[in-house]
Amino acid sequence: MPDPRLIALDWGTSNLRARLLGDGGACLEERSAGCGVMAVPAGGFNAALVDVCGDWLRAHAVPLLASGMVGSRQGWMEAPYLACPAGPASAATALTLVPVDAGPAAAKRTLHVVPGLCWQDPNGVADVMRGEETQVWGAGVAAGGLCVLPGTHSKWVWTDPAGRIAGFRTFMTGELYSLLCQHSILGRLMDPAAGEDLASFDAGVRRGLGGSAVATHAIFAARTAGLMGTVPPSGLRDHLSGILIGAEIGGALAESPPRPHDADSTLTLIGDEGLCRRYARALQLAGRASRPAQAQATLRGQWIVANAAGLVSSPFLSQNE
Amino acid sequence: MPDPRLIALDWGTSNLRARLLGDGGACLEERSAGCGVMAVPAGGFNAALVDVCGDWLRAHAVPLLASGMVGSRQGWMEAPYLACPAGPASAATALTLVPVDAGPAAAKRTLHVVPGLCWQDPNGVADVMRGEETQVWGAGVAAGGLCVLPGTHSKWVWTDPAGRIAGFRTFMTGELYSLLCQHSILGRLMDPAAGEDLASFDAGVRRGLGGSAVATHAIFAARTAGLMGTVPPSGLRDHLSGILIGAEIGGALAESPPRPHDADSTLTLIGDEGLCRRYARALQLAGRASRPAQAQATLRGQWIVANAAGLVSSPFLSQNE
Repeated sequence: MPDPRLIALDWGTSNLRARLLGDGGACLEERSAGCGVMAVPAGGFNAALVDVCGDWLRAHAVPLLASGMVGSRQGWMEAPYLACPAGPASAATALTLVPVDAGPAAAKRTLHVVPGLCWQDPNGVADVMRGEETQVWGAGVAAGGLCVLPGTHSKWVWTDPAGRIAGFRTFMTGELYSLLCQHSILGRLMDPAAGEDLASFDAGVRRGLGGSAVATHAIFAARTAGLMGTVPPSGLRDHLSGILIGAEIGGALAESPPRPHDADSTLTLIGDEGLCRRYARALQLAGRASRPAQAQATLRGQWIVANAAGLVSSPFLSQNE
Repeated sequence: MPDPRLIALDWGTSNLRARLLGDGGACLEERSAGCGVMAVPAGGFNAALVDVCGDWLRAHAVPLLASGMVGSRQGWMEAPYLACPAGPASAATALTLVPVDAGPAAAKRTLHVVPGLCWQDPNGVADVMRGEETQVWGAGVAAGGLCVLPGTHSKWVWTDPAGRIAGFRTFMTGELYSLLCQHSILGRLMDPAAGEDLASFDAGVRRGLGGSAVATHAIFAARTAGLMGTVPPSGLRDHLSGILIGAEIGGALAESPPRPHDADSTLTLIGDEGLCRRYARALQLAGRASRPAQAQATLRGQWIVANAAGLVSSPFLSQNE
C-alpha cells in the first residue's frame, strides 16, 4: 500500500464515510457506518470515530479532516459558519480543531472540521449549508456557474468569477415529498408497489413549473387528479415528485437574484445519480441544460481544502477518478 | 316545541352535527357526535344515524337532508359532483336519495344528500369540494364576490353575477401545517408550550406573500431563522402558519383567474372564528379587506337547498341567527 497522507471523513446526519487517502487524493481504503450525527449520543463522537477507524489512527500518523453535519450544534463540536463568498482557501483558514483520543497505543491527534457556510439573500433571509460546500468545491463547477444538489434539503449554489461560492438557496423538497407520501391524504391514494411512471412525473413537473402554481394548491390538485383517475394510483408518487421538483426549479431559476450565471449556461448536478437524472429531466422541461458533476466531488473537495490548509502537500490528481 | 320541519345533517370527515329545524330554519335541537365519515365502517351509516337521532326519526315524520363528506366515495353513498356554475337551485335538482331504515317503530325515510361541486381551471386542472358549497350558499356572499373557507384544505370560492358558485381553488395549507409541525425538522425546533406570537406570524405572512417565495424555500428559511435565533422557538409555529397562509393568499389573489370579483372588494371569511381572524389579519397585510360570513352558514345553506327542493315550504328567517 502506498503511504497514507490523510484520513478524510464525510460525516453526515445518517452516515459516516471514512477514507484513507494517499498522494494526490488516491483512495487507499474506504469504510462507511451508520453512526451519523443523529445516531451518536452527545459525548460519543470520539468513540464512534475509533470504532470505525481506530486501526488507521493507530497505524498511520496522518492528519484528519471532516466535513458535514459533524460540525453542527448536534455534532462533535460546532464549527462556526463562514460567510459567503467562500472558497477552499478561506475555509482552510477557518477549520475548527477537535482533539482526538485514539487510545493509549496511539498519539494524540487533531480532527480538522470544515466550516459550514451561511448566506443572507437581499431580503435579509438567512440560509445555511454544511457539507455541501465541500462537494461544490470538488465538483468542478465553473466560475460564475450554477449547480444543484438535489435531496432532502435541495441546495442551489452559484459561484463568483473567482470560483468561490457566492450564495445559495435551500428548498425543503425531499423532506416535503417524504412527509406527503407517508402522512398526507395524498399518500393514502398512492399505490405503494408502483414502479417509476415518467409520464406522470413530466406532467407534475409542467404543473410545478407553471408560474401560477402555489405548491399547496398543486399538491391538492394532485390528490384530486388521483381521485378523478386523471393520474393513476401507480403514477401519483412520481406526479407529486414532479410537482415539487418543478416548483423548486421554477422558483429557483426565477429568483436566484445576484445572477453571476448566464441564463443559457449549463447547470451542474451534484449527488445521487438517480435523483440527478430526475432533475436533469425536469430541467430539460424547463429549457435548461445540465451535466453531472465530476466524480468523487466530496473526496476531491476535502483534498482541496486539506491542501489549502497545508495538511497535505500534493494537488488532487484526476487519474484517481 | 314548535313543529319540526327538517332534520339537517352536517356530516363531515370527523364529526356529525345533526339539527332538528322548525319553520324558517329555527333550530329546535342540536346534537353532535364523533361518528364522522372516517369513523364509520362501510355499511354502518344507517346505524350511526339512528344512534345519534333515532328518537327524532321515530317522533317526527319530517324530511332529512345532509351535506358534507357523507356524500363522498368513503361516505354513505356517493353523490356525483355537480359542475360549476352551481347554486342551490341546481343542487336541489341533483340530490342523491338514500333510503333510511329507522327501525320497526318508524316509517321508512329518505335522506337527501347535497352534491359536491367540481370545477376545472383554464389549464384543465380539476378541483372538488363537498360540504363547503352549502356553507357558501348560506354565508351571504355577494354576487360576484370572493370568499375563503380556511382549514385543512382551504377553499377560495368566487360567485357569478347570479350568485352561483362560479369556480374555486383548494390549498392544502392546514394539512401541510400539521404535517410540518408534527413530522418535520422544523417541528423539532418548535416550543410545544408556546402561546400565540403575532409578530412572528406577521413576519411569516410577509415572507409568504412575497412573490418570490417558493413555499419549500420559505419553509426551510423558517428553520434557518429558528436555528439562528431570528425567530424564537416560541414563535416558530406561528411563523410557519404565517408563511403558509401568506403563500396561499398571495397565490390565490394572483391566480383566481376568471375574476368576477373586483380587486377592491371585501372578501367573506367562512368557518372557525379563530382561524378566520388569522386570515383577516393576513389579508390586511396583503392590502385586502374582509368580513365574517353570516352566522350559521351551514344551517342556512341546508335550509335554502331544502326549500329549493320543496322539502320545506318557508324561506329562512334571519331572526333565527
